[in-house]
Amino acid sequence: MMSTRLPLNQRALGDEIIRLGQQVRLVAFDVDGTLTDGRLLFSDDGSELKAFHVLDGQGLKLLERIGIVTALITARRSPLVERRAADLGIPHVIQGCQDKGQALQELCANRTISASHVAFMGDDLPDLSAMRHAGLSVAPANAHPWVAERVHLQTRLAGGSGAVRELCDWLIDVQAQREAILRVWLGA
Amino acid sequence: MMSTRLPLNQRALGDEIIRLGQQVRLVAFDVDGTLTDGRLLFSDDGSELKAFHVLDGQGLKLLERIGIVTALITARRSPLVERRAADLGIPHVIQGCQDKGQALQELCANRTISASHVAFMGDDLPDLSAMRHAGLSVAPANAHPWVAERVHLQTRLAGGSGAVRELCDWLIDVQAQREAILRVWLGA
Amino acid sequence: MMSTRLPLNQRALGDEIIRLGQQVRLVAFDVDGTLTDGRLLFSDDGSELKAFHVLDGQGLKLLERIGIVTALITARRSPLVERRAADLGIPHVIQGCQDKGQALQELCANRTISASHVAFMGDDLPDLSAMRHAGLSVAPANAHPWVAERVHLQTRLAGGSGAVRELCDWLIDVQAQREAILRVWLGA
Amino acid sequence: MMSTRLPLNQRALGDEIIRLGQQVRLVAFDVDGTLTDGRLLFSDDGSELKAFHVLDGQGLKLLERIGIVTALITARRSPLVERRAADLGIPHVIQGCQDKGQALQELCANRTISASHVAFMGDDLPDLSAMRHAGLSVAPANAHPWVAERVHLQTRLAGGSGAVRELCDWLIDVQAQREAILRVWLGA
Repeated sequence: MMSTRLPLNQRALGDEIIRLGQQVRLVAFDVDGTLTDGRLLFSDDGSELKAFHVLDGQGLKLLERIGIVTALITARRSPLVERRAADLGIPHVIQGCQDKGQALQELCANRTISASHVAFMGDDLPDLSAMRHAGLSVAPANAHPWVAERVHLQTRLAGGSGAVRELCDWLIDVQAQREAILRVWLGA
Repeated sequence: MMSTRLPLNQRALGDEIIRLGQQVRLVAFDVDGTLTDGRLLFSDDGSELKAFHVLDGQGLKLLERIGIVTALITARRSPLVERRAADLGIPHVIQGCQDKGQALQELCANRTISASHVAFMGDDLPDLSAMRHAGLSVAPANAHPWVAERVHLQTRLAGGSGAVRELCDWLIDVQAQREAILRVWLGA
Repeated sequence: MMSTRLPLNQRALGDEIIRLGQQVRLVAFDVDGTLTDGRLLFSDDGSELKAFHVLDGQGLKLLERIGIVTALITARRSPLVERRAADLGIPHVIQGCQDKGQALQELCANRTISASHVAFMGDDLPDLSAMRHAGLSVAPANAHPWVAERVHLQTRLAGGSGAVRELCDWLIDVQAQREAILRVWLGA
Repeated sequence: MMSTRLPLNQRALGDEIIRLGQQVRLVAFDVDGTLTDGRLLFSDDGSELKAFHVLDGQGLKLLERIGIVTALITARRSPLVERRAADLGIPHVIQGCQDKGQALQELCANRTISASHVAFMGDDLPDLSAMRHAGLSVAPANAHPWVAERVHLQTRLAGGSGAVRELCDWLIDVQAQREAILRVWLGA
């Protein structure tokens, strides 16, 4: 499988990739390295911090607006991931996940969405098992090279700096929703 | 509308843009992505952190010194924004704002400043509604592309790394206040 | 001694360096600047934070999987280093260390591993004493120049951004374990 | 006055600058933007964090080792600056300083060190008043342009990423102490 490392612009991509994007109804995201820059901030009092990005949060809300279901699937566990998902209205959050492929399959069954209508975005080896079960696989700019060489698309932006928003924008564009979205803030 | 992505140097910009800058009497700023780099740091104990930049804080104080009113208008809510604004002497802070355009219009009415004398700086779609009502619209280097292509000016520096200061310096220059400012620290 | 600043790809490196990598049985890492980007985050309530990277954590777990022992040796002291090491299953953590060379020698004796089978990765002058006793010395991209010019290998990635993972991947490759590792997530 | 934006390598610099470096007996540093990257991290519980760099801390300890006095002079106030200075053995910490030029003059008088034997490193306008009273003025890569164009030297590295260490290393080199320093960790 060859990945396309290009701006996520539908004119620059092959017709097959665009067709995959057009039929996406659910997108599942890894957390660390995808919704964050991969940094795990630990305090000596035992607490942990993560840095999400405001652009990504807006993108996830826009997906919901155009009817695409969102999910987070992560191997680690942290109450702050639950809270961030609640803030953004993300309906599915699977933490402490040891087999992301199985988790994604269960989610598809639960939502009765075919795997070919699902995108998965992740950056490291444990994401490969979910990517095998997703119609469209995406990695951020900072993805591990053994993952980057196996995905359909790689964003120009890195995780935690808007990579998730870049995928959201591309889905909005291939599903022809940009004008409708802009009208919300620019008026008729 | 075309944006000018250039160093914010008055010699490089069109006369019309400079004229807009010369008449600015109030500047309103988005917070996340503009006064910060867009990262939302969450701790697992439920607290939130934001990273402002010392260069920007100095710039906001300089604007006040030359008689330009400053304001923050943000969709999110956080007590730390209130505190940072108080530290810097920013007189207007509007949080939890769902319609930035309306908020900016009310602020102009309240201060009896004409919209043509107002600049707004922001980085994402919700800022577009405020930009429509501002005489001068500005985006940081990291702005979302759908916003960047609609502003008068884009800074070279990114939000949270001095983008706000870059705009402040440009206003100081087009309003011919650089020498007066420098004299404070360099002496006569 | 000349350092090789190249992608850590075994085809690009001299045979001697590869042979050194093939016999590594233990890798010891400095913490600040190597497993982190060198930033020391202090809060005004007296607590300290460090930012580790999720890619590095995965790399350290992969080393353990292929039978390479891991260790942390650091001059500073922080309870969060202990906790991060425990999370990752790192068996040896030496903090508050004033002589890293001596600490590494004691560790080799304790594990009955010959110094020629040991790699040490660090970024600053105090790491030089440990590098003198290690068969293979490695520095991250951000290493101090007086250290970088004295190591066998320098990673392309900086500390805290995956430099440790880059070394782990190289060891996995020169020890011919990549396919076995990938099979875990890709299946047979 | 012209600034020299070059690697801080004595062969590349004019004889006059090297002579200034050779006679430095005290170095005073601004904090935010010089010892940090200028980011001011605020938590919504009211606490503040700063990110220092481990390379800089080592550099300040090396200056002390070669007999150069160190000082911090900052306009802001934070208990964590006091603690960081204590950790590193920095003898002079002046916080909440409104006139850095006056503070530097008082420090020189107190230590009976002539102003021509003093270096000051800072990044923004309030540092200019101290630079006027220092024999050697230095700015980090990220300095405000109105400051950068007025200093003797500008480091390649940015504040909070090793800019302070780069100045320390240069002073060590022009004062011919590199070999003595390296001998501590490399042995005779």
